Amino acid sequence: MNILITDTTIIPMAGDQRLWFSGDIGITDSQIAHVGTVPDSFQADTVIDGSNSIVLPGLINAHNHLSMTLLRSYADDMDLFSWLHYKIWPIENRMTAEHIYHGSLLGAAEQIKSGITAFADMYFHQEQTIRAVLDAGMRANIGATFMGDEQASLQRVGAYRDLFAEYDGSGDGRIAIDIAPHAIYTCGGRTLEIASDLAAELSCRLHIHLSESLQEQADCFDAHRMSPLAYLHSRDFFKVPTYAAHCVHLSREDLELCGQLDIHAVHNPTSNLKLGNGVAPITEMLKRGMHPALGTDGASSNNNLNIFEEMHLASLIHKGQTGDPTAVSAYQVLQMATTYGAQALGIDQRTGSLEPGKDADLIMIQTDVPHLQPMHDPIAAVIYAAQASDVQTVICRGRILMHQRVLQTLDEQAVIAHAVEAAEALTS
Amino acid sequence: MNILITDTTIIPMAGDQRLWFSGDIGITDSQIAHVGTVPDSFQADTVIDGSNSIVLPGLINAHNHLSMTLLRSYADDMDLFSWLHYKIWPIENRMTAEHIYHGSLLGAAEQIKSGITAFADMYFHQEQTIRAVLDAGMRANIGATFMGDEQASLQRVGAYRDLFAEYDGSGDGRIAIDIAPHAIYTCGGRTLEIASDLAAELSCRLHIHLSESLQEQADCFDAHRMSPLAYLHSRDFFKVPTYAAHCVHLSREDLELCGQLDIHAVHNPTSNLKLGNGVAPITEMLKRGMHPALGTDGASSNNNLNIFEEMHLASLIHKGQTGDPTAVSAYQVLQMATTYGAQALGIDQRTGSLEPGKDADLIMIQTDVPHLQPMHDPIAAVIYAAQASDVQTVICRGRILMHQRVLQTLDEQAVIAHAVEAAEALTS
Repeated sequence: MNILITDTTIIPMAGDQRLWFSGDIGITDSQIAHVGTVPDSFQADTVIDGSNSIVLPGLINAHNHLSMTLLRSYADDMDLFSWLHYKIWPIENRMTAEHIYHGSLLGAAEQIKSGITAFADMYFHQEQTIRAVLDAGMRANIGATFMGDEQASLQRVGAYRDLFAEYDGSGDGRIAIDIAPHAIYTCGGRTLEIASDLAAELSCRLHIHLSESLQEQADCFDAHRMSPLAYLHSRDFFKVPTYAAHCVHLSREDLELCGQLDIHAVHNPTSNLKLGNGVAPITEMLKRGMHPALGTDGASSNNNLNIFEEMHLASLIHKGQTGDPTAVSAYQVLQMATTYGAQALGIDQRTGSLEPGKDADLIMIQTDVPHLQPMHDPIAAVIYAAQASDVQTVICRGRILMHQRVLQTLDEQAVIAHAVEAAEALTS
Repeated sequence: MNILITDTTIIPMAGDQRLWFSGDIGITDSQIAHVGTVPDSFQADTVIDGSNSIVLPGLINAHNHLSMTLLRSYADDMDLFSWLHYKIWPIENRMTAEHIYHGSLLGAAEQIKSGITAFADMYFHQEQTIRAVLDAGMRANIGATFMGDEQASLQRVGAYRDLFAEYDGSGDGRIAIDIAPHAIYTCGGRTLEIASDLAAELSCRLHIHLSESLQEQADCFDAHRMSPLAYLHSRDFFKVPTYAAHCVHLSREDLELCGQLDIHAVHNPTSNLKLGNGVAPITEMLKRGMHPALGTDGASSNNNLNIFEEMHLASLIHKGQTGDPTAVSAYQVLQMATTYGAQALGIDQRTGSLEPGKDADLIMIQTDVPHLQPMHDPIAAVIYAAQASDVQTVICRGRILMHQRVLQTLDEQAVIAHAVEAAEALTS
């Protein structure tokens, strides 16, 4: 199906082009064909009026645990130990494949309504999350999770080879399978090796939690006399490109190492603040030419999957922390949520910017609302003033997933009802 | 007109009551008559279905410069000096009464759509902002602003006496006139005295910017060898209750003094972060039993008037800064945006909680949306997961200002068009 978007404001995020301009966009089936000027000969099946709209690349949520939507607002304002031991883990132990599917569908619905077209996930029952992603029409890097000791991990290798064989590249390339050892504090040394070896064998990416809390730092220095990143490097962990969530407590030496290896930090500002872990050194990363991505983390420590809120926080907290109002500009934040996210997930050949030849992953933001007018600068408006609910239309690989805020691939109220039922079964 | 809201989730913010419960609400003309159980004999002119909703007191934005909406996204990611001298002040110098009116109307529309029923303002051409507030049906404490030297200030006193006589208590008590000396760095010593004396004469409140930046602190210590708060106190400034915006750099001694005097801090987290000023010591204030209010500041340093974003930030940044995930609970944040705001503005006899006898200022939040479900805890849902756009209905003093997101007192698109026109005239 060909789609023509007319008379709109375009923020292409395409390198050296103008930051924003007015024009049309032409989509041929799954791909972007024209950005700015569309030839008169273009045959559109669907025409969308883009006036009073900003068109952006679909936003990328580079760290998530999708079905933790089931535990939204279930446990808040608690210390990490009590939160995990008394609230989160007891429930997770009871989650079945069916729960994961319904939680994932809810998360997919919420993400589409927040302008997200692609995300990276790390959780259990991966095939259920994949099923939800395919139902929803989104794009996802699905993490095959490792935790625990050698024995537990060796048992998983076969199943993950099968998962990779069956799903990597499925949904016309929308699904990628990555390997996701949870963290150094939940994986034994052999588990980290097994995961890293499997990622190298499959030529996929690694997804891990890294340097999230001071406790993780302290325990690692106690045990290994080095930082979590240095410890992983000492075990030859980084054989493939890696995206690492949090990176709150990376040292200067760690940042140096990230530059040498192919490691992408994923900034999760809400989660890091909410759990009392602090603020990642994003200003320093950007100065060094690193390309940090942006993520929501799971809904249980956020409590939503609203990447607009993460963009808002990322634009503000580093200014406040450094005392420099020029730190982390609106445009840099938008790069984190688009191109840098795509680079982290290894999908930047397909998505992350509006350029002919890329997959048609894009969102339309309504601008004729009081909180976005007057609009002296569309990029500042998106980062500092817009809400997720301003996203009216979401297109992924040329398919309309939401139009005028109505989901096209999912029955929103049915998705909510099933998820609420699953959550009630788990928590009662 | 009597309004009945049925079968809803109520967060009353009324002291020792249960934090939330299910029930009905009965409104008789301008006042709340029943909360929880409404007698069968209650005669309603309008019945609103409250299922799938949370009802809260109308939110209070305790520090604003309403018509700065005209400068939204006009100048961002700049240092404070360049921002003020090259961008904001040159435009402000060209603002006429007509510009202020249209900017104020836009701000009123935006605030209603964000669930705000009352706010405190500090700007010029106060009668235009009052006109907009009365048109919109909101509640406001309007600051009669002082800046500059003795001569300039003495000229204003007569006009402000007239302003107070004409408008204080107008709109059936919805308008209060306060005295607003801008800050110690923009007001000479005699201007501070003149303002303080006038506030005492009129028995109204003082509204001032206080300890916003390190520069203000440093200059005050240089000139007076004491903090801005101590300097004001040394001049016998605090003759009446005062609400002070920002309070980022209050010392332990300053906090002690706030406790002794009737000084209400107004927390403006977005503005303080965005301008690189830092984070106010809210955790310390709450520990001392102070009741900080919450504000957006003007849209030019935010860039919106979205009190949900301020609540979200207030719930997160102090956890991140102190490393304590139990710091500043969701309920405390909601107190800041309701009861504490009403106390700061001296309107807590009328508004800020849902109790029989108070004015009917309340909002309804839609809950059957993906990002609020499942809803294990309505208070956590409001603070950590809700967006301003979830506010469906806004009632102020018994009058419906918005229903199903449609403004009832203002023509939204006309308001936007006039404001855009005013902004274009100012910036071209």
